[in-house]
Amino acid sequence: MSEVRVHNFSISLDGFGTGDVQSADAPFGHAGERLHEWMFATRFWDKTGGSLGADNAFADRNSVGIGAEIMGAGKFGPPGWQDDADWKGWWGPNPPFHSPVIVLTHRPRPAIEMEGGTTFHFLDATPAEAIEQAKTAADGKDVRIGGGATVIRDCVAAGLVDHMHLVQVPIVLGRGVRVWDGLEALEDSFDIEATSTPSGVTHLTFTKRR
Amino acid sequence: MSEVRVHNFSISLDGFGTGDVQSADAPFGHAGERLHEWMFATRFWDKTGGSLGADNAFADRNSVGIGAEIMGAGKFGPPGWQDDADWKGWWGPNPPFHSPVIVLTHRPRPAIEMEGGTTFHFLDATPAEAIEQAKTAADGKDVRIGGGATVIRDCVAAGLVDHMHLVQVPIVLGRGVRVWDGLEALEDSFDIEATSTPSGVTHLTFTKRR
Repeated sequence: MSEVRVHNFSISLDGFGTGDVQSADAPFGHAGERLHEWMFATRFWDKTGGSLGADNAFADRNSVGIGAEIMGAGKFGPPGWQDDADWKGWWGPNPPFHSPVIVLTHRPRPAIEMEGGTTFHFLDATPAEAIEQAKTAADGKDVRIGGGATVIRDCVAAGLVDHMHLVQVPIVLGRGVRVWDGLEALEDSFDIEATSTPSGVTHLTFTKRR
Repeated sequence: MSEVRVHNFSISLDGFGTGDVQSADAPFGHAGERLHEWMFATRFWDKTGGSLGADNAFADRNSVGIGAEIMGAGKFGPPGWQDDADWKGWWGPNPPFHSPVIVLTHRPRPAIEMEGGTTFHFLDATPAEAIEQAKTAADGKDVRIGGGATVIRDCVAAGLVDHMHLVQVPIVLGRGVRVWDGLEALEDSFDIEATSTPSGVTHLTFTKRR
């Protein structure tokens, strides 16, 4: 059975998945890269020198068994990317997805085929509709909700997510987009585990009860 | 040197130290006792049957070397306790503080001496003024900021806290009083450690840099 999963989504202690204000020069706003330093230090990211401890074990689950990703417009590009006909995402010619990627936007455009198996599809749809299309595209594999915080919490609030992995980083951002808003009583439908690691982060895993 | 410390202050994943709405029947609002179950299970709380693991080691630091506590009006009683001349707190004739306790309120009343060494002093003052008085009352020992969330974050924001221990419980409350508000960039002045334990909570310790 194809599942819907969230992986490696980093948040601050106060729950922000991105800072304020996002721009072409600052994809995560005033958070900079601080939310992701834990990941850059793992073998998952740094194929030659990265660590092989608990952070890497969690991070590496990101790609296992995934057949498609869904992301929000705010992850695909800076505010206003819809006005740039040549914008093809942040990731260069060979993006790290290697699967169909559905980009949710109110201004869809024709699909873009990239190197390495990534194809960006642009869709103006609800989370449920997007997940249905993504499951078809994933061909029996799982669907990853890639973020940002708004898309993740919309999908979780709609009861569409089977598993979620958040990584809490010991900084207080104070402003940005908060992943928790609207998710009251999440513990009623998910088993929640917390695992802090020597790097200082805490991995929070949410496994949907059956 | 007398220090100002916070201990055993429990918060939800989304940072609420108390739920909504507080009342005489529900001191923590819709949070009920869920924020404190981890503590009830320790030897610190349950002197005959409680656990002696990591949760207890953290919890037990609460009382070591403390000479006075400061608490907000919302911790001392339900909304409107100031209208009840007989209100002496939630804790019965022998409260668990065993020290002078400064209660911050805009409607101070004469001090109340309780059994077991606890005396409640009522003060209409800024956090800095309250801490100065508490340090005098503590006679060289440390001062504990007992909560609630508003008093803690006011004291932290004013740079008056040397050490803070928060306990993150795996529930999402969605509403209440959030401890993080106004504390952006806390990591610049504190070393932060996270320790998750088998009970499912994560202890967050903040040690002020010197």
